[in-house]
Amino acid sequence: MKAQRVEIFVSPSATPADTSNLQTLADAGKIRPDTLVALVGKTEGTGFHDDWGRVWADVALRSWTARLLGVPVDDVAKHVIFVLSGGCPGVITPHIAAVTREWVEIDAPAREKRLVVGRAGSDAIVPEEVGRMGMMRKVATATHEAMKDAGLTDPKDVHLVMVKVPGLTVASIRDAESRGQTVVSHDLTFGPEGAGSYANDAAALGVAMALGEVPESSLSDDVVRRDWDLYSEVAMTSSGGEKRHGEVVVFGNSTASASPLVIGHAVTKDFIDAQGVRNALRSAGVRFKDGLPDEADLGRLVHVFAKSVIPGSDQVRGQRITLLDDADAYQIGKALGGMLVASVTGRTTNYVSGGERNSHQGPPGGNIVAAVVRLG
Amino acid sequence: MKAQRVEIFVSPSATPADTSNLQTLADAGKIRPDTLVALVGKTEGTGFHDDWGRVWADVALRSWTARLLGVPVDDVAKHVIFVLSGGCPGVITPHIAAVTREWVEIDAPAREKRLVVGRAGSDAIVPEEVGRMGMMRKVATATHEAMKDAGLTDPKDVHLVMVKVPGLTVASIRDAESRGQTVVSHDLTFGPEGAGSYANDAAALGVAMALGEVPESSLSDDVVRRDWDLYSEVAMTSSGGEKRHGEVVVFGNSTASASPLVIGHAVTKDFIDAQGVRNALRSAGVRFKDGLPDEADLGRLVHVFAKSVIPGSDQVRGQRITLLDDADAYQIGKALGGMLVASVTGRTTNYVSGGERNSHQGPPGGNIVAAVVRLG
Amino acid sequence: MKAQRVEIFVSPSATPADTSNLQTLADAGKIRPDTLVALVGKTEGTGFHDDWGRVWADVALRSWTARLLGVPVDDVAKHVIFVLSGGCPGVITPHIAAVTREWVEIDAPAREKRLVVGRAGSDAIVPEEVGRMGMMRKVATATHEAMKDAGLTDPKDVHLVMVKVPGLTVASIRDAESRGQTVVSHDLTFGPEGAGSYANDAAALGVAMALGEVPESSLSDDVVRRDWDLYSEVAMTSSGGEKRHGEVVVFGNSTASASPLVIGHAVTKDFIDAQGVRNALRSAGVRFKDGLPDEADLGRLVHVFAKSVIPGSDQVRGQRITLLDDADAYQIGKALGGMLVASVTGRTTNYVSGGERNSHQGPPGGNIVAAVVRLG
Amino acid sequence: MKAQRVEIFVSPSATPADTSNLQTLADAGKIRPDTLVALVGKTEGTGFHDDWGRVWADVALRSWTARLLGVPVDDVAKHVIFVLSGGCPGVITPHIAAVTREWVEIDAPAREKRLVVGRAGSDAIVPEEVGRMGMMRKVATATHEAMKDAGLTDPKDVHLVMVKVPGLTVASIRDAESRGQTVVSHDLTFGPEGAGSYANDAAALGVAMALGEVPESSLSDDVVRRDWDLYSEVAMTSSGGEKRHGEVVVFGNSTASASPLVIGHAVTKDFIDAQGVRNALRSAGVRFKDGLPDEADLGRLVHVFAKSVIPGSDQVRGQRITLLDDADAYQIGKALGGMLVASVTGRTTNYVSGGERNSHQGPPGGNIVAAVVRLG
Repeated sequence: MKAQRVEIFVSPSATPADTSNLQTLADAGKIRPDTLVALVGKTEGTGFHDDWGRVWADVALRSWTARLLGVPVDDVAKHVIFVLSGGCPGVITPHIAAVTREWVEIDAPAREKRLVVGRAGSDAIVPEEVGRMGMMRKVATATHEAMKDAGLTDPKDVHLVMVKVPGLTVASIRDAESRGQTVVSHDLTFGPEGAGSYANDAAALGVAMALGEVPESSLSDDVVRRDWDLYSEVAMTSSGGEKRHGEVVVFGNSTASASPLVIGHAVTKDFIDAQGVRNALRSAGVRFKDGLPDEADLGRLVHVFAKSVIPGSDQVRGQRITLLDDADAYQIGKALGGMLVASVTGRTTNYVSGGERNSHQGPPGGNIVAAVVRLG
Repeated sequence: MKAQRVEIFVSPSATPADTSNLQTLADAGKIRPDTLVALVGKTEGTGFHDDWGRVWADVALRSWTARLLGVPVDDVAKHVIFVLSGGCPGVITPHIAAVTREWVEIDAPAREKRLVVGRAGSDAIVPEEVGRMGMMRKVATATHEAMKDAGLTDPKDVHLVMVKVPGLTVASIRDAESRGQTVVSHDLTFGPEGAGSYANDAAALGVAMALGEVPESSLSDDVVRRDWDLYSEVAMTSSGGEKRHGEVVVFGNSTASASPLVIGHAVTKDFIDAQGVRNALRSAGVRFKDGLPDEADLGRLVHVFAKSVIPGSDQVRGQRITLLDDADAYQIGKALGGMLVASVTGRTTNYVSGGERNSHQGPPGGNIVAAVVRLG
Repeated sequence: MKAQRVEIFVSPSATPADTSNLQTLADAGKIRPDTLVALVGKTEGTGFHDDWGRVWADVALRSWTARLLGVPVDDVAKHVIFVLSGGCPGVITPHIAAVTREWVEIDAPAREKRLVVGRAGSDAIVPEEVGRMGMMRKVATATHEAMKDAGLTDPKDVHLVMVKVPGLTVASIRDAESRGQTVVSHDLTFGPEGAGSYANDAAALGVAMALGEVPESSLSDDVVRRDWDLYSEVAMTSSGGEKRHGEVVVFGNSTASASPLVIGHAVTKDFIDAQGVRNALRSAGVRFKDGLPDEADLGRLVHVFAKSVIPGSDQVRGQRITLLDDADAYQIGKALGGMLVASVTGRTTNYVSGGERNSHQGPPGGNIVAAVVRLG
Repeated sequence: MKAQRVEIFVSPSATPADTSNLQTLADAGKIRPDTLVALVGKTEGTGFHDDWGRVWADVALRSWTARLLGVPVDDVAKHVIFVLSGGCPGVITPHIAAVTREWVEIDAPAREKRLVVGRAGSDAIVPEEVGRMGMMRKVATATHEAMKDAGLTDPKDVHLVMVKVPGLTVASIRDAESRGQTVVSHDLTFGPEGAGSYANDAAALGVAMALGEVPESSLSDDVVRRDWDLYSEVAMTSSGGEKRHGEVVVFGNSTASASPLVIGHAVTKDFIDAQGVRNALRSAGVRFKDGLPDEADLGRLVHVFAKSVIPGSDQVRGQRITLLDDADAYQIGKALGGMLVASVTGRTTNYVSGGERNSHQGPPGGNIVAAVVRLG
């Protein structure tokens, strides 16, 4: 039977444009033009929307990938999905994780489920759909297609869904309004009423709809960024004004896999919940000793993907914090997630994105953590 | 025999000037004019030297204390030591810990050592001594006196020494130079060559000298902020331009104590070392279960005092971080320490100061953590 | 006939709580309990909503005023209007301008119009009115009353209208929604879709309505923060969650005045338009020499009140600027207005507030500048 | 006789890596491989030392220049000098000014002096010379050589000297100390005692020495960043750890020139002195009308180069400002210089660098402004 063999290679970057470690992997045959499916990484810089570290990294990585694949730069997006999250405040090491997938023949299904990955693009999402049901439905459909591409049928086997969707821009708002349509917000930021937040959150609810985490009957335009009890435990979403359709990458476990890797996930119950991070590692199969990840076994931990959304409340376990009032909350919030994860994994090359306030990515106050572990 | 009975009351503050919780403690007789020895707290605000949150808190707390004691505001400093650390980024709840001490008669020494506290002022420290041997020697002498006041003789029983010393100012530099003296730096900041950093670090080495952590023969003007292998594991120091002499508060354990509290401490080995924080709790007597503090026992944890000095290296466990290059490193560094402690203690009312780069307070890359626990 | 004699005393502040210069004025009889009508100032600090410098200044000034007036602190607001704008980035000197008014008998109307001031409170403004027509109408009515109090009938004689209105809070939104009402925004910030911005802008349009700058027929809920061609040239507005009704202070010129002062105003045409600032000075009567304010005459300039709203466009005179993308735009925008004014007035004790993006206070891209000059 | 024909083309940049306007100039033959001598510009980004906007711009511009010249990227520095100043806060439009020079035959010296440009590299500057007399002397020698290359003999004809020198790095300090040498500072920042500031200031004093603005006998290691009465009125300097020798570009006026351009300069007397900026324009030949630059004549203004060093004092014209205490002083200080210049030139494409505190580039509290004007 045909099965996937998925690998993830985590490469620290010395500068935003550093592709030397990726090239070494390519030279060694570990990354090949026909196997590279995604580059997911953290880039150093401000983390804001005009973060030139991230933009430069994007340009340099697309250019490197075009050379690897032997295609024009503009065609790279057809072959490889890029998820670059800007900003490495604190103890987040800038790095790129290259995800590869090859198809192999296996005699029988694996005894234990192993990592598979699937991808899909959504139909075009028009500006009036951004942050609303239209976006949710198209993301849900694409999530189903990506699951199919991954060979996954049971939502319980899905542990991480990375989504990129269109945001709004001055131009796309003008377009919608010229056609007599309204848009979800005129605020183009990722603030509490910003179009970027609405786009990310509708995408998350689209994943939740696809996986049955939230029944479609509970969903409407009005619940987005209002009813925080509706959320996904596996969706990590982002949005950009330049995009016209959604992109979805699903990570899960399947017996139709020859991968040496397994994925697991958990959610933190609040912003300081290290146990939630430990649960993610345990879920993926890291061995524990005396309640803590066994240091001798942590070498098998390949990578952690975590969100660090700031809680919408100013209370953590009954005490007031001032983070919501902090002018630097966006960067500090991301940095704190980096510390929570690093203090558990004992390493700093973790993928931690976030900083926004409140989200349907994870439960109220909590965050999503996924972990990939190499079979022992 | 005469023994101390020391208590620590941790009061969250709703605003910088909020003294309502302290007043409730005073009304209940828990804080009395003759027992209050120190107010140690975190105040919300920028954390910079012109942090008006901290200044306002200082004014409000001195005014409240003057009313409690029935003395003029200017005399408050003779009776109560104030250690207010500005800036509560992230998950640090603004709070004031009131330290009280009363003298009681006990029949026999306690079977296990319990918390005692001692205080002393140093001789006046002139500007040319700031950040140099002169300051170290005077702080060392005051540390010995504070130990005596606490009834402590063995340095091993000392678990936390809080020190405030004079920094440099434009005026005090002019004074020194007009007398033909030099000063350690013309940079008045807490930057890597700033007078504030030199003052704090000489104070820390003074404590190290007093406790025998560093032999006096190893100390000289030249080692300050140069030889990072010389450090104290219990000194938390700060400096201010307005001061003329040093103030020292020593916390330790003694059998000549009727306190219901015990103190312990440990150091972290690096910036993400949660185990170091756990060790501090264990040292103070918190019970552990499966490698983690037993949640049922964490109610006995009264307070944690921790530093969060940023490492001088851009490497954490072999991977690069960008914190040293971050324009917001001062606040992010403090916030990260707050998360490291909160993720272990499960609460946000921890005293965490820091943000400066490199220090003789704790080992290179690591930080000091002290914990106070109520006897079970 | 009865006439006003209005004076403005500009007092630099050494710290947020510094009232020493005000006390000196009180000791000299220049500020009296029966003459003090307003304290308008710039306070040092972050300028954000949790700016403890501004909060501390507010507490200290109200306390000082209560002592001056011999009334409880809670009653001060009935007698004196406080307009404290936080944040003195760049070349804005922290200061308080005390506005006094006494009533005197004069034989005949003044030959040239002179400064008068009038005040009024609006009816209570409920949360569902914030940022909408309800607020505009109530502010318009109060503006008419304040003009009456000032003895002004012709809108052309009005040169500055300072307004404070209620904003929204978590509690007031809950109140409105529990009564089946909607609110203008759930974003409590001063961002582009924030309730604070809507409140300020509805207040400005209320002034514009009262003065006939914008016909009432052009106004509706929908134009607020949408139709930037509707604006006031004299309204400087602010909002706060703690308020329940609006407060209006009108400054204008009248022949029924014995004041030694005259006020004038102008608007800048864009963000770098120093000529607009010069026009304000010229309008108030500063003599010019060679196209510039005559330095020998600038001693007669008493005070300048200016807004520094950031343009909504990323173009200034046809070239791109990056201010809209700047994480520090709020503070930099305010600082730039301070420089524009100081470079014309040759002094740094100017009242400059702003930093928000786009507003109905002044024309698109431009800002309001009012100047008060002493008669020669 | 042989004469220079110098041109300056100011190209706004849409992104840090935008070379499209430069390419248009190249396509039109205005920039040629044999005429391009320098690219001087402002790049958008944080302005800090890890400003990826500036780094990306540098990479993209060197790559573009290499293609234009037909040389390897590593050889570009031998042909073209790059002065890229990061950070465009406020009203500074990101742009690149291309300086070209060709040699032409003229019949007779020009009647009025016109723009010439000259370049030179210094001898290698070792780490122990950074910020000290060794650096001053080598920069002075290179300045003389650049003057010679420009055909200038009289220092009065020199209106702008741009200098880049080596700074210190962890590696170069280690190198110096391993050879028994000391370095000027271990602080690698541009703070008040930072090596970057010492390097820039020694370079400025080197120019001052070369031009006779400061007699060599007044100079010593000890005066750098101590005796602010020693300064250059034409030196704009920067430093970088990667450099091993200094680079100097001199701009002046000469009769041996066929340029259609003239340069002039002036200094501001303090931080808000718009008259100083106007004086620079007047010095370069802009016509004035009623004390202000004649708007009809401003079309002849080609470019302005200005510094915006923050004053070392907290007083401007006798009033206190809080800029020295501002955590964002570096960016706000630069932004304020941008506003001062733009409010005079009526445009935002001005080269304004700075933000550091105190410097030997310009008088205490004041700044250098140079202007280039096209002959009418």
